[in-house]
Amino acid sequence: MSTHPDYGAAFAAWRAAAGADWERYVRHAFVAGLGNGALPRPAFLHYLAQDYVFLFHFARAWALAAAKAEHLDEMRLAARTLDALANDETRLHVELCAAEGIDAAALLATPEAPETLAYTRYVLEAGWSGDLLDLLATLAPCVLGYGEIGVRLAREAAPGTPYRPWIDTYAGEAYQQTCREVGALTDAAIARRLGPGATALPRWQALSARFTTATRLEGAFWDMGLRGHP
Amino acid sequence: MSTHPDYGAAFAAWRAAAGADWERYVRHAFVAGLGNGALPRPAFLHYLAQDYVFLFHFARAWALAAAKAEHLDEMRLAARTLDALANDETRLHVELCAAEGIDAAALLATPEAPETLAYTRYVLEAGWSGDLLDLLATLAPCVLGYGEIGVRLAREAAPGTPYRPWIDTYAGEAYQQTCREVGALTDAAIARRLGPGATALPRWQALSARFTTATRLEGAFWDMGLRGHP
Amino acid sequence: MSTHPDYGAAFAAWRAAAGADWERYVRHAFVAGLGNGALPRPAFLHYLAQDYVFLFHFARAWALAAAKAEHLDEMRLAARTLDALANDETRLHVELCAAEGIDAAALLATPEAPETLAYTRYVLEAGWSGDLLDLLATLAPCVLGYGEIGVRLAREAAPGTPYRPWIDTYAGEAYQQTCREVGALTDAAIARRLGPGATALPRWQALSARFTTATRLEGAFWDMGLRGHP
Amino acid sequence: MSTHPDYGAAFAAWRAAAGADWERYVRHAFVAGLGNGALPRPAFLHYLAQDYVFLFHFARAWALAAAKAEHLDEMRLAARTLDALANDETRLHVELCAAEGIDAAALLATPEAPETLAYTRYVLEAGWSGDLLDLLATLAPCVLGYGEIGVRLAREAAPGTPYRPWIDTYAGEAYQQTCREVGALTDAAIARRLGPGATALPRWQALSARFTTATRLEGAFWDMGLRGHP
Repeated sequence: MSTHPDYGAAFAAWRAAAGADWERYVRHAFVAGLGNGALPRPAFLHYLAQDYVFLFHFARAWALAAAKAEHLDEMRLAARTLDALANDETRLHVELCAAEGIDAAALLATPEAPETLAYTRYVLEAGWSGDLLDLLATLAPCVLGYGEIGVRLAREAAPGTPYRPWIDTYAGEAYQQTCREVGALTDAAIARRLGPGATALPRWQALSARFTTATRLEGAFWDMGLRGHP
Repeated sequence: MSTHPDYGAAFAAWRAAAGADWERYVRHAFVAGLGNGALPRPAFLHYLAQDYVFLFHFARAWALAAAKAEHLDEMRLAARTLDALANDETRLHVELCAAEGIDAAALLATPEAPETLAYTRYVLEAGWSGDLLDLLATLAPCVLGYGEIGVRLAREAAPGTPYRPWIDTYAGEAYQQTCREVGALTDAAIARRLGPGATALPRWQALSARFTTATRLEGAFWDMGLRGHP
Repeated sequence: MSTHPDYGAAFAAWRAAAGADWERYVRHAFVAGLGNGALPRPAFLHYLAQDYVFLFHFARAWALAAAKAEHLDEMRLAARTLDALANDETRLHVELCAAEGIDAAALLATPEAPETLAYTRYVLEAGWSGDLLDLLATLAPCVLGYGEIGVRLAREAAPGTPYRPWIDTYAGEAYQQTCREVGALTDAAIARRLGPGATALPRWQALSARFTTATRLEGAFWDMGLRGHP
Repeated sequence: MSTHPDYGAAFAAWRAAAGADWERYVRHAFVAGLGNGALPRPAFLHYLAQDYVFLFHFARAWALAAAKAEHLDEMRLAARTLDALANDETRLHVELCAAEGIDAAALLATPEAPETLAYTRYVLEAGWSGDLLDLLATLAPCVLGYGEIGVRLAREAAPGTPYRPWIDTYAGEAYQQTCREVGALTDAAIARRLGPGATALPRWQALSARFTTATRLEGAFWDMGLRGHP
């Protein structure tokens, strides 16, 4: 039986094609440390601050998805996602960091780590130079990977891990619903452009390669978190 | 005394620089017809259908503004505006058209008039090839011009004009608040990039020229409305 | 037998799909006037000046094609085309206009006609928001349409038409070679992305619709030429 | 007296502002190894192969500069640079690698190193989201830094270094002329948009920060070269 949630057909295929890169990302030592509680607090806080920098560019990428939408329902989901990121998530992030002793000024002044820069610019550049499908393929490892990690850790994590709130956020129904919607949007966007035989087209290989590259960059983002400094 | 609302310094300067083109736009026969009720219904319905086509691209332009934002507050206003356009305005538009006998399928199948195409692609192309300021300068005539028209018509319109709901929408506090926010965002975005002496820079002339061109294209949009067919 | 040159499979299919819009464009009264010599000189000069404005944006679109290239040979042809437009064609255009009494300063100061703006921004916006295929589909009516018109007029034009140099430029082997290369690039770029069954995909319909819209905008460009003023 | 060549005012100011990051880049151990001949051959070959991957995206960035040009002379220099990169440099690179035993197929199959990806996507993303100035500020460290390194190594390198041809390429008059033209274009592009007081504007700080970030990414590119594998 499948041990991971169902976020649609494209994700399942791209995930399988990413193979060892996918496993390296979702079973990274950083992730294991969230689950068993062994992740050092400074590493988590460093990750949180970089994630705030990441979030801004991630929101820009969803904005770009809305700008590249060709159908109203594509635009609507991208717009809702952007609005949630820009107007809600960033505030929550500021509060979360404040609770950890990182004040808003320090958070805003976080120097961008090379891994944060590499990942965000790769996603955005894929979006600027390509179409909505390029964006969705590069956004999927982050959006859906966190969903998969959240579900697994909710099942496997040590009862006493201090990272339970993080796990609950991504395992929670609200986030899982977003994952299912993004997965369904991706499948629909592909079918609308490339038809039912999309997986046999050269274009599909290009999208799958985008997904794998983004997966590797997610893995490097965890490396950076573990390292604990920019 | 000023007969038009205050939407900030950049708008006031660009509006003055647009001169006769601005007057031609905001005092167009189509606008006069909304006020005195003489606008033929078919012209209004034709305008409404084209405005629906316009709205999709207009929302894309606000999405692009969010993607080009360099500060979180810029992104937040653009994201809210996009979300309102994509998730609320378009639905209201469908309902409004349905009440007028244009069903959703007919609305979606509206062939794009040349004036709609010219205006929307000019705004979007300015955004893709330039920065947030280029976008704001080309969006301003539409956003703020409708605000100015709404306020004036609310004061001057014939009591019995059947176009009172249209007037009330744009004269209403919600829309006027949006206009003030967009005006303030524009002034702030300029100051953040070009400093307090922005109006003396060559860049300012380029932005002002963008505003004037977009103003002319708004005028042509009314021409198309009056003509009553694509 | 075919009365028009062979510029590849995609062009042939899109051309057929554009139907009456294509015929309206390539057999426009402006074109007929070039052939029989009846085109008023002021109309031709007006067209020349607008074509200079057009050329700048057309070169930008080829630059964008190079930026969106995914293979070196795609980039090379786009780069050569851009370089020829920016460094050669624009100079020839200035000389041609000078010979007609339009000096360089006047040419540079040409106000952009609405039809020039609509067409150029449509092509560019298709490029920014889409991929190389969107660009090639919107560039094709101009590049290949002029090739087809040149070949036909070279065969049919009145011996004494004063527009023989214009006809010879586009009927000439150098321009025809460019047309064949662009046609071949287009077919190859489609096959590389969408595979051998591209014509059956929804994406193909979208590209064909892009071609038809650009064809209509080319027709409107001739209308503007005939009108003889911006 | 100045020990480095004069490539214009903006470069001089941005270079000074980059401070230690600039020195780290132009006096990197990789560069020292080119000069004294101590650079291991495998490191040089690894660098060459990654530089080929880099070149493709670098050419795309110059294409984007042409697409974002607002004046014909800006477009012309960008177009010539792109054409030289796409149609000449890439061929020379293939020949150079072939002479070193890396055949064309192996070169094309080079997996992109993280540092190559980070640098190229940062430059391109700056270009897509900003204007010509953002592109020029991020391109400058590469174009002009190599010119500065070439001039210095031509003066200081050990007589017997096997990397003399590399040094001669960048110290040579053709490359130095390109550097002076790009420097002059940058100064002119800034003056045309931001006027004579550009250095006092917030925009200037943003451009200078772009330059510094790109400089750091160039430094990381040398790190990758020294490491000798992706």
